Amino acid sequence: MRTVYVAGVGSTTFGRHPDRSLRHLGWEACRDAIADAGIAPSALAAGYCGNALAPAIQGETSVGQNVFWEVGLAGLPVINVENACASGSTALHQGWMAVAGGFHDAVIVVGVEKAVMPKGMPLNVGAGEMETQLGDIFPGFFAMMAQRHALSFGTTREQMAKVAVKNRANGMLNPLVQFKKTVTVEEVLASPMIADPITLNSCCANADGAAAAILCDEATARRLGRAKVRIAASVLRSGDYDSERDLAIWDSEAKAARLAYALAGLGPEDLDLVELHDAFSICEIVHCEGLGLCKPGEGGRLLDEGATALGGRIPVNPSGGLLAKGHPIGASGVGQIAEIAWQLRGRAGPRQIAGARVGLAQMMGGAKERDARAIALHILVAD
Amino acid sequence: MRTVYVAGVGSTTFGRHPDRSLRHLGWEACRDAIADAGIAPSALAAGYCGNALAPAIQGETSVGQNVFWEVGLAGLPVINVENACASGSTALHQGWMAVAGGFHDAVIVVGVEKAVMPKGMPLNVGAGEMETQLGDIFPGFFAMMAQRHALSFGTTREQMAKVAVKNRANGMLNPLVQFKKTVTVEEVLASPMIADPITLNSCCANADGAAAAILCDEATARRLGRAKVRIAASVLRSGDYDSERDLAIWDSEAKAARLAYALAGLGPEDLDLVELHDAFSICEIVHCEGLGLCKPGEGGRLLDEGATALGGRIPVNPSGGLLAKGHPIGASGVGQIAEIAWQLRGRAGPRQIAGARVGLAQMMGGAKERDARAIALHILVAD
Repeated sequence: MRTVYVAGVGSTTFGRHPDRSLRHLGWEACRDAIADAGIAPSALAAGYCGNALAPAIQGETSVGQNVFWEVGLAGLPVINVENACASGSTALHQGWMAVAGGFHDAVIVVGVEKAVMPKGMPLNVGAGEMETQLGDIFPGFFAMMAQRHALSFGTTREQMAKVAVKNRANGMLNPLVQFKKTVTVEEVLASPMIADPITLNSCCANADGAAAAILCDEATARRLGRAKVRIAASVLRSGDYDSERDLAIWDSEAKAARLAYALAGLGPEDLDLVELHDAFSICEIVHCEGLGLCKPGEGGRLLDEGATALGGRIPVNPSGGLLAKGHPIGASGVGQIAEIAWQLRGRAGPRQIAGARVGLAQMMGGAKERDARAIALHILVAD
Repeated sequence: MRTVYVAGVGSTTFGRHPDRSLRHLGWEACRDAIADAGIAPSALAAGYCGNALAPAIQGETSVGQNVFWEVGLAGLPVINVENACASGSTALHQGWMAVAGGFHDAVIVVGVEKAVMPKGMPLNVGAGEMETQLGDIFPGFFAMMAQRHALSFGTTREQMAKVAVKNRANGMLNPLVQFKKTVTVEEVLASPMIADPITLNSCCANADGAAAAILCDEATARRLGRAKVRIAASVLRSGDYDSERDLAIWDSEAKAARLAYALAGLGPEDLDLVELHDAFSICEIVHCEGLGLCKPGEGGRLLDEGATALGGRIPVNPSGGLLAKGHPIGASGVGQIAEIAWQLRGRAGPRQIAGARVGLAQMMGGAKERDARAIALHILVAD
């Protein structure tokens, strides 16, 4: 298996872009990633596109072909990938396979979404699912998880609120975010209740946006002078769908994390930063535990101690995460890779983590039988 | 790169299944493919799902997870792939990569679709496309191609009609088809005009259905006693989107075919059967030329000579093709692989091609700038 590098990245601002099409957003991210890599478009041998909602919201299919054509790419294999929130991460995983397996020397991966929905359109986890039909959609699902976490481990509403406070504060240092406004614990707790204990400010907002990455083999990376950001692990799995599952502990994620660490030859103690799927504030707490950043049940304490803040032991979501950036579903996973690449290259501006060498990106997609449909982990290392 | 085998295949009947869900159709195909391969489900290390329209028609996303769970598969990486009509073929290409690249020893690929549309729902090639907005949808696009072919090469309406006549006749020998009824040249020509010269009987019908295949490496194939059907080439590309393109000649397909033949070390003269994308009767004529089964412009003559009929020099669409089987969009490409696998194993019943050793599956997906969004070719060889 060949070593794969992230040669370049690009991202639009995330937020509301009512005046821009999917292809225009995708074009900007791809253009910037290509320029960042300094690669000739003709050297890109395949294109992977992560998108979740375009067929349902925009009535548009085969989004990748539209986007890649806008940066002058034709003739190459284009693969459109959907895996709910992990659509972009799954596209990355497939692009990584294409290079690691020796099929292509350089590929482009884009995640693109216009997820700001028409009023009244329900957010679901797959219309055919009994959970959705019964109203057990994401906020309710994660509210139950939060309730269970509080009961099992004593995690408080204040600790959960601190996730939003921290990530909004980080977002103030990132020009790409949707919400350029800090919040206090009191404001988070006092914002409208969505599904007890999840309040409005504990939820990420759907957004429009795109992010892209150029992946390549070692020879190409050296030729481009971009042999810096190496993909040390790319792991994708689905949930175990165990109906007996304890909602406060995410076993299937822990399994994915163990595999990723083994592939990278690293442990959670080696991480300098983590970008993870903070769709709701409780998610960050549970995922910190699932990824082994602390013991099960201690995710709340990480917030109290400031361990996951910028300047803390292990900064989580230095970009601002979904809670500040907004969540352009299929783009978010690629956006995480852009943030980590910038951090590992010392180009993260005022939110730069000094000496960052190892970053982990975690994404979850969808829900089924109270587990995730897709769990995607990428570990990036600065060589 | 490792050699990949098709260890088992399965397919539902194609047609109207208003009483069955996507997951129920997918379950049947996967169950049959797993049984055909004689493989333990636990040996399947990844799942690839091709589907094009579920988000738009059923409001359902991440279809693969739903389908694979019904055959007891959880925890494995699941990748949902969309590439219009080539969605299933693209899922196959990705599954092939996973095994060929040494990532997994055995994977399952399913194509599944409920494409019978609610009345009044327009068929488009991506709502954002200017072509679609101007009404240049598939029947119109292929009607122009037929007009151009007639003008350039003298191809007649009778020759085009013979495609439907042949494929409907083949379909009489296949228990899986939607249309169990022969048609005559006169009937095809007299059926309602859709887009001159394309008549109703020259169009395939959207259908519901699913097909699945188990792909594995050589060691697994030998252990299962299934080292018979080898994938000699798996090629995916997009169109060249050349606005100067001659509509009567499909250059981008010819390029894909040259690559596939080179990878397989075979030429069109070595093929014993071809399954191809006869969405409209003119398609089969143009694709026969693109694949090099005859010279450009001679596709009509193949029909007059009976060369592509069962018993002819090179049978095309012995299964009945889309014109007889119906077209469950994301499932059709995997259905072609099922047909070829059965033929190469001598299990195609009354439509068996004696001594079939080499088969080619061709699929095109979508349209953009008057070219295909995706061209997928698979060459299968009986070892």
